[in-house]
Amino acid sequence: MSSSLGKMFRVTIFGESHGPCIGVVIDGCPAGLMIDEGGIREELRRRSPREPEISTSRREPDEVKILSGVFRGYTTGAPLCMLVRNEDVRSHNYHEVRYRPRPGHADYTAYVKYGGYNDYRGGGIFSGRITVAMVMAGAIARKILAHFGIKIIAHTIEIGGIKARRPSMELIEELASRSPVGCADLKASAEMVKVIKEARRLGDSVGGVIEVIALNVPPGVGEPVFDTLEGDLAKAFFAIPGVKGVEFGAGFKAASMKGSEYNDQFIIRHGRIATKSNNAGGIQGGISNGMPIICRIAFRPPSSIRRPQRTVDLRTLKETVLRLQGRFDPCIVPRALPIVKAMMAIVLTDHMIQAGMIPRVIKE
Amino acid sequence: MSSSLGKMFRVTIFGESHGPCIGVVIDGCPAGLMIDEGGIREELRRRSPREPEISTSRREPDEVKILSGVFRGYTTGAPLCMLVRNEDVRSHNYHEVRYRPRPGHADYTAYVKYGGYNDYRGGGIFSGRITVAMVMAGAIARKILAHFGIKIIAHTIEIGGIKARRPSMELIEELASRSPVGCADLKASAEMVKVIKEARRLGDSVGGVIEVIALNVPPGVGEPVFDTLEGDLAKAFFAIPGVKGVEFGAGFKAASMKGSEYNDQFIIRHGRIATKSNNAGGIQGGISNGMPIICRIAFRPPSSIRRPQRTVDLRTLKETVLRLQGRFDPCIVPRALPIVKAMMAIVLTDHMIQAGMIPRVIKE
Amino acid sequence: MSSSLGKMFRVTIFGESHGPCIGVVIDGCPAGLMIDEGGIREELRRRSPREPEISTSRREPDEVKILSGVFRGYTTGAPLCMLVRNEDVRSHNYHEVRYRPRPGHADYTAYVKYGGYNDYRGGGIFSGRITVAMVMAGAIARKILAHFGIKIIAHTIEIGGIKARRPSMELIEELASRSPVGCADLKASAEMVKVIKEARRLGDSVGGVIEVIALNVPPGVGEPVFDTLEGDLAKAFFAIPGVKGVEFGAGFKAASMKGSEYNDQFIIRHGRIATKSNNAGGIQGGISNGMPIICRIAFRPPSSIRRPQRTVDLRTLKETVLRLQGRFDPCIVPRALPIVKAMMAIVLTDHMIQAGMIPRVIKE
Amino acid sequence: MSSSLGKMFRVTIFGESHGPCIGVVIDGCPAGLMIDEGGIREELRRRSPREPEISTSRREPDEVKILSGVFRGYTTGAPLCMLVRNEDVRSHNYHEVRYRPRPGHADYTAYVKYGGYNDYRGGGIFSGRITVAMVMAGAIARKILAHFGIKIIAHTIEIGGIKARRPSMELIEELASRSPVGCADLKASAEMVKVIKEARRLGDSVGGVIEVIALNVPPGVGEPVFDTLEGDLAKAFFAIPGVKGVEFGAGFKAASMKGSEYNDQFIIRHGRIATKSNNAGGIQGGISNGMPIICRIAFRPPSSIRRPQRTVDLRTLKETVLRLQGRFDPCIVPRALPIVKAMMAIVLTDHMIQAGMIPRVIKE
Repeated sequence: MSSSLGKMFRVTIFGESHGPCIGVVIDGCPAGLMIDEGGIREELRRRSPREPEISTSRREPDEVKILSGVFRGYTTGAPLCMLVRNEDVRSHNYHEVRYRPRPGHADYTAYVKYGGYNDYRGGGIFSGRITVAMVMAGAIARKILAHFGIKIIAHTIEIGGIKARRPSMELIEELASRSPVGCADLKASAEMVKVIKEARRLGDSVGGVIEVIALNVPPGVGEPVFDTLEGDLAKAFFAIPGVKGVEFGAGFKAASMKGSEYNDQFIIRHGRIATKSNNAGGIQGGISNGMPIICRIAFRPPSSIRRPQRTVDLRTLKETVLRLQGRFDPCIVPRALPIVKAMMAIVLTDHMIQAGMIPRVIKE
Repeated sequence: MSSSLGKMFRVTIFGESHGPCIGVVIDGCPAGLMIDEGGIREELRRRSPREPEISTSRREPDEVKILSGVFRGYTTGAPLCMLVRNEDVRSHNYHEVRYRPRPGHADYTAYVKYGGYNDYRGGGIFSGRITVAMVMAGAIARKILAHFGIKIIAHTIEIGGIKARRPSMELIEELASRSPVGCADLKASAEMVKVIKEARRLGDSVGGVIEVIALNVPPGVGEPVFDTLEGDLAKAFFAIPGVKGVEFGAGFKAASMKGSEYNDQFIIRHGRIATKSNNAGGIQGGISNGMPIICRIAFRPPSSIRRPQRTVDLRTLKETVLRLQGRFDPCIVPRALPIVKAMMAIVLTDHMIQAGMIPRVIKE
Repeated sequence: MSSSLGKMFRVTIFGESHGPCIGVVIDGCPAGLMIDEGGIREELRRRSPREPEISTSRREPDEVKILSGVFRGYTTGAPLCMLVRNEDVRSHNYHEVRYRPRPGHADYTAYVKYGGYNDYRGGGIFSGRITVAMVMAGAIARKILAHFGIKIIAHTIEIGGIKARRPSMELIEELASRSPVGCADLKASAEMVKVIKEARRLGDSVGGVIEVIALNVPPGVGEPVFDTLEGDLAKAFFAIPGVKGVEFGAGFKAASMKGSEYNDQFIIRHGRIATKSNNAGGIQGGISNGMPIICRIAFRPPSSIRRPQRTVDLRTLKETVLRLQGRFDPCIVPRALPIVKAMMAIVLTDHMIQAGMIPRVIKE
Repeated sequence: MSSSLGKMFRVTIFGESHGPCIGVVIDGCPAGLMIDEGGIREELRRRSPREPEISTSRREPDEVKILSGVFRGYTTGAPLCMLVRNEDVRSHNYHEVRYRPRPGHADYTAYVKYGGYNDYRGGGIFSGRITVAMVMAGAIARKILAHFGIKIIAHTIEIGGIKARRPSMELIEELASRSPVGCADLKASAEMVKVIKEARRLGDSVGGVIEVIALNVPPGVGEPVFDTLEGDLAKAFFAIPGVKGVEFGAGFKAASMKGSEYNDQFIIRHGRIATKSNNAGGIQGGISNGMPIICRIAFRPPSSIRRPQRTVDLRTLKETVLRLQGRFDPCIVPRALPIVKAMMAIVLTDHMIQAGMIPRVIKE
């Protein structure tokens, strides 16, 4: 286990799906940041299941409790610990999967790695529930970035094979906020909802793709050779359960482009250096170039489905059939939007501190 | 700059394209490993430009010199430093790009980040030349992994829009070795060669996709929540110049699959737990599950092209036109095969030491 | 702030003296360890003020709450979070020191570093109260070490100028347990108690020296050049409030010895390699040699005293006089014994995991 | 092995006593620093054996070669690698110690830890020769600190039981430079020389104590809870071969002081906050307070002596007698002065970057 991320803004996560709580400690948070618990709660609300027809029925109030690092409403520079209690827990559903790992889940690998001592209830620390900790830390990071004019937006661009068209950059956020699946192409959004409902009806699930964009990141963020901005962002995104691919700018499409098409020509825009296109996704040589940082993240379909599946009994090494019961999300993508934004904010904050762009005390 | 990778098997890189050498220090290498300089040289040879018609004409003998950490042919447990001299260097070609950043390159971001003090000749540390260090360290890591029966293979699956069909796992290596571009689909390989030659003729360049596979990795490798195997592999791959996307198993295609299609059902094969399909690419919950680890990596086309491009003069902030001269690779993908294998080997070695699967002394 | 210690067994601390709680997260704890909350409570009890006449009157029940990482009484391999609530808090005493830093305390440096946003009540995170987190983590580490036959003992060898004679190794623990100040020389112990009482009567305080010993550590623990066992132990001890010196084996006395006196000659004892003397304190070249690891730690007198002291008002930069009121410890040394043992256990556990001597799953 | 130190200014060391070279890589060095090889050479010269009568007869020209990270005389921000060749090597002297570990040395622990694969010639990486790498890195760090007005001085305060009186702070450097053993008390210096010569005559060795002082360090440097300034300095000093104790300010003497004596009262001096005394050695709560940082470091006598010693044959586990021949230093202290200064400079530079006090680009 290695549950910490970051070098100068270091996030440590703890808690399990069916334990008493999910928590996070942030080490290296600048002092002087005004903390607004309402803002954190609002982010958590976006992560919560919303429309009953397209998500799980597990409901949690997710009230944040700050245990340290904040005094009289401002961060102190000391480690900031935040907790959310787990409440709507129904552990009896999970006993049957203890020795019969669910296909697609971490049940089997966790069993092997931790010698069967892992908390298998609800997937333990491998549950999507752990992303509550990411969102809490991300809310702090986004507050810091906002102080420097940096904004992070995310929208759904694919669900269950339905692809969305990307509107102009300025409209994305507003349009996506009107979609129950966070898709800025409202026509595609309607189809996505249909696909999710159909999957739910069939006891199945669907995957999708999220695009996340950071605006106004100054040039010079990123620490190559190895701590590139792409590398550290990708590492952070792969910690979100269900992510199987990450690409920046033109991404996999760049593989079929010619250099003369791909290369972003330098121009002067509003008196500053910019690039005409943004196939690099705002990152060159692992360092931000001042253009929007654009990243797309592929989510596999949620593993928990009600359709019968083959598995193996870990005690007898005999094949068997698994029929899962419980409350499952037919599609994780809409709820993953705030998680993706959180992870991007955490990595950018850490890197901007490393680059000397965020001071140790912020005067708000 | 952060030029170290790994926690227990820690690789530190130094050197620039037009400096005296490229070097690497490995800290945490197990003692007792027999070091065969010929094997390292052979890996470097694969990374060297081969067919004159499809690659740069820069030629370097790339003789490895071991400066520390090896005594009487075996690793001692002390830091292992290896060097390769730079020889075929023609720096005068690069003076003109000092203040006129090449589109697609790190020239601009390096200039901003290092205040103009960066060594701009040949891209300095942002040059593909730095991958010599990765290949040297990877040769050591692959030797360690071989001791545990682990094998890494890589093949080209796309160049310039030409996609290859993947043969059965057992044939990949042999077939790819017969292709000048490392593609196991020999018909596609011939077309890829044509595409590269055409790009070279036009003073242009093309990108591609590499698939890398690790066989016989035991289950239990990977340290979630944050140091997942996918995350650390992706981070390592994004350190290779030109990488813009990384995906595991079904990858981006997983986004359009249903859970009932995607989930890899558990079965018993040869008396051991396996999965029927391998959409997870051998990794579940960030931990290896014993199946082949499969990863695809997208490379943008090389940035250096002879076709005229727009850029900006950094002194005057005036737009201008850049006409590059020099020796350029029209496609980096074939030469990237050993680099990709090296990075996978480095990450796997580091993670297996973390998991307690590789001892501190190897008795060969 | 950097509140994490360790590489493979990583301890992260949070909480403040007058905040809601003190907590710790352990990342990298082996799975399968049976957790006994009573044992942790017992360690905390030793850290609590005992004899009213020689310590503070602040009283806390210090009930440990485990928030994650333990399932059905065994560690799961996931991050282990433990909390203790702060209860007997009287914050009103501290308002007057906000802008008038206490001599000897971290009030001034914390004010400068965190721009005045630090939680100054009771010293915030600089309070001795934070050592509750160290003791909790240490209790887990000591449990792991006990599994491998390693035992850590500590005793007071100096308080307020009174020096103790060290009895034979086997008697230390039993004799020290009979002393209210943890001193195995019971005659010196009686004098130490007198010195502490006298200091308390005068509104003053006294310092002292603790010796901590680890028995049965196998040879080969320690990661030079930089992560030496001495270096990592010293770093851990200096994190305990009040420590100003650390020495191993003969320590400062070694400076006046001749090589022929100092060098520990190798001999065979009970069929195994040992050294005749132990001036090296069980560590050579930064690596354990199998002999007892012996370390002495100097504590300055507690800073909070009732005698009037000069200070400066941080708002006016005028000199002023400070008369502290509150509940102060005239001597921290007796309560520091379990803290010192905890830190040694944490470092040894981390290093033994690094050396591959502790597996990732312990079968108890 | 873990041969890297530092978080943002990261020093990695490689090389062995009898290998081809000693080298160091600095990762995270600010760009724009003017590099003067003469200055580095001068530091190395101070580390070299000087007076033939009081030190080893091994002589090396120690010419520094910069392999990367410097372009046109300025640091580029890329990893800076420096090398010194080993020349005056006489390996045949060491074959006899392969299986007969020298008392006081790391021969035995290295043999155990690295399974007998360690390079035993001259102690391999455990040799004092490795400190050449520390001095090279320290020369860079001292250059950076000088840019911010910070100065580091060191002097010998004890050798072979002879203790020196400390002159006033301003005189230390000048007086110490006139002593062959770096002692500012010239009367004590003469006695120290005598003691060393006598030890040499008898085939024996003597230890000593160095005091190192950093002037003009701004308040606010240090990252508690765990990365305290004392802790990171102590860890760095314990990496120097032969160090057995480290203390700050009043150090071990603080243990016998009363709080009313020890506490450094705050006063106003030249319009700024200062302390009247400096028993804290310039560090409170792990953070610098603006006063001189004062540290004392105890060195055991060098282990290699010509007098016969008992040891054990590692093959037969039989006791035997060792009679060493070769070129030995009867006292390492005088040569350790630049090493101690180097380590302090490295740690301070790293911490000041962490604290945001040193920018990523320095304009000289």
